[in-house]
Amino acid sequence: MTPIAVSLGDPAGIGPEITGKTWSERYDHKLKPFFAVGDPGSVRAVWEGPVEKIGSPDEAEAVFDRALPLLPVESGETVTPGVPTPEGARCALDSLELAVGLARSDAVQAVVTGPVSKSRLYDIGFTHPGQTEFVAERCGVSRDNIAMMLAGPSLRTIPMTTHIPLRDVPDVISIEMIVNKGRAAARGLERNFGIAEPRLAFAGLNPHAGEFGALGREEIDIVEPALAQLREEGLNAMGPFAADTMFHPAAREKYDVALCLYHDQALIPLKTLHFDEGVNLTLGLPIVRTSPDHGTAFEIAGKNIANPGATIAAISLAAFCAEQRLVYEGSVAA
Amino acid sequence: MTPIAVSLGDPAGIGPEITGKTWSERYDHKLKPFFAVGDPGSVRAVWEGPVEKIGSPDEAEAVFDRALPLLPVESGETVTPGVPTPEGARCALDSLELAVGLARSDAVQAVVTGPVSKSRLYDIGFTHPGQTEFVAERCGVSRDNIAMMLAGPSLRTIPMTTHIPLRDVPDVISIEMIVNKGRAAARGLERNFGIAEPRLAFAGLNPHAGEFGALGREEIDIVEPALAQLREEGLNAMGPFAADTMFHPAAREKYDVALCLYHDQALIPLKTLHFDEGVNLTLGLPIVRTSPDHGTAFEIAGKNIANPGATIAAISLAAFCAEQRLVYEGSVAA
Repeated sequence: MTPIAVSLGDPAGIGPEITGKTWSERYDHKLKPFFAVGDPGSVRAVWEGPVEKIGSPDEAEAVFDRALPLLPVESGETVTPGVPTPEGARCALDSLELAVGLARSDAVQAVVTGPVSKSRLYDIGFTHPGQTEFVAERCGVSRDNIAMMLAGPSLRTIPMTTHIPLRDVPDVISIEMIVNKGRAAARGLERNFGIAEPRLAFAGLNPHAGEFGALGREEIDIVEPALAQLREEGLNAMGPFAADTMFHPAAREKYDVALCLYHDQALIPLKTLHFDEGVNLTLGLPIVRTSPDHGTAFEIAGKNIANPGATIAAISLAAFCAEQRLVYEGSVAA
Repeated sequence: MTPIAVSLGDPAGIGPEITGKTWSERYDHKLKPFFAVGDPGSVRAVWEGPVEKIGSPDEAEAVFDRALPLLPVESGETVTPGVPTPEGARCALDSLELAVGLARSDAVQAVVTGPVSKSRLYDIGFTHPGQTEFVAERCGVSRDNIAMMLAGPSLRTIPMTTHIPLRDVPDVISIEMIVNKGRAAARGLERNFGIAEPRLAFAGLNPHAGEFGALGREEIDIVEPALAQLREEGLNAMGPFAADTMFHPAAREKYDVALCLYHDQALIPLKTLHFDEGVNLTLGLPIVRTSPDHGTAFEIAGKNIANPGATIAAISLAAFCAEQRLVYEGSVAA
């Protein structure tokens, strides 16, 4: 069976620990074979379970039963949990790049990317807003045509803008951007989740979705025209809704994904409901890529208290989406 | 017993219906005597229960057992549920003003204000951002020194800015404003909830609270200096935190109130968790004022499907806070 690659993220963050813990729980959660990509020392520093180095993905399945298979990317230094370094950031980036390359060549069926520190990556010259945009570039896809989806057991959200200052959001959003994200969301739900006619719920930007223009005009000038265009294309685009009324249980039943205009509009409800099990899935890529929806948590690294729930969920979802894609591609080919 | 006044809000909204339903459930929820203030026709149009007009608050308690007591403020027109009018907006405002005046003169122990349409109020020349600021002015309190708190069973939040376009938020927030809100929050929790040393958790503005300045500088330039000042004054001011990490169960246990920088940052988590039971409480007033935390919901008015949960919770909380204030004032006087 083709395995899943899990990049460990920043060696000083909680990525190595939660990957080890996830391997320990592999049977409880019926996880498909996966292997880690990253610094062997970062795992040994925080986890006592068995680790076995592999030279290529096809060795992972045989090892998986007895040890965490690990494809080494050496950081070249001794890892101190909770203390990030430029060498660690470089190792995280190299691990990510290797894992994505393996997926591009079909050596793995999906990539799960561990948490990195964006500020540490910026320090070593990383110019992408986040891992998602880097992965898109390595896959040859314009970042305009991908969408970052956060998925939990009872909610999926897409932040249409991500890691930019809140101040910049009103000027960054555009009709074209919302249309692109809407298309990516619809295609992505069909391809990765098998949802034939996805219901897309769009949030407004302002309090009460602008209350007919009294509290801001972006809904009238930008969101509504974008939704009109998506509807003309045959998509089920609903809204714009007041963001605070979209996430209680009855509201969540009415859509398959909530498309939000900024990071926290999407992340607050997702993490409020599913803090330890939120998965980040990139829509619009030729590969399946998921990620646990949390940060490096340097402050608890090495304390053996990090929760592997989101990584377990990320691996499960990656396997599910990889399977759905085979079904989808089969149906398209038929 | 001094009753609680409930202004009905917009006659064409769901306020009249949920007030009637709340009266029907008065024994189930052990509600203290209350009476409605508003248009009698608005209640008759949507609710079949008994209504009895009263001429002053002191008549309410005797009536409360057999009928919903109602202090009439005629709109002068026939109410059509779901169809707001300028006359209705005027009636809502007059009812609010009367209820607040009664609280100011100690004729009622608290005011619960029903939902109004801000855009309809603006149409008739209302110049306050919302009911809260209007109530503050009628109480002779600067709006700078009040704070709107949203309270549910497991979460309290304060939006430090409220009904303004999101675009304006970064330029409206200031060190002084955050300090004022922090003080109002601390005093308000002590006075209305009996919490001696309130734990205040402040949200950042940007994704990941700005990630050390990489994703925005308002945390460094505005929020952190404000929190430093509050700490110098002896208050337990924590943060700024990444807003998306503040609202899961484990995080909520660590503070008594979350202070947020804009409307949806506070309202999304509150309504996600407590959509039908969120209460709006104004801190910093000489009177106790609460409100169900939802809008007029014109689209469902008159359909007998509106949920009275938030109004029930608002009346319960108003009675609780009125009682706590007596305890607090007694302890201060002693």
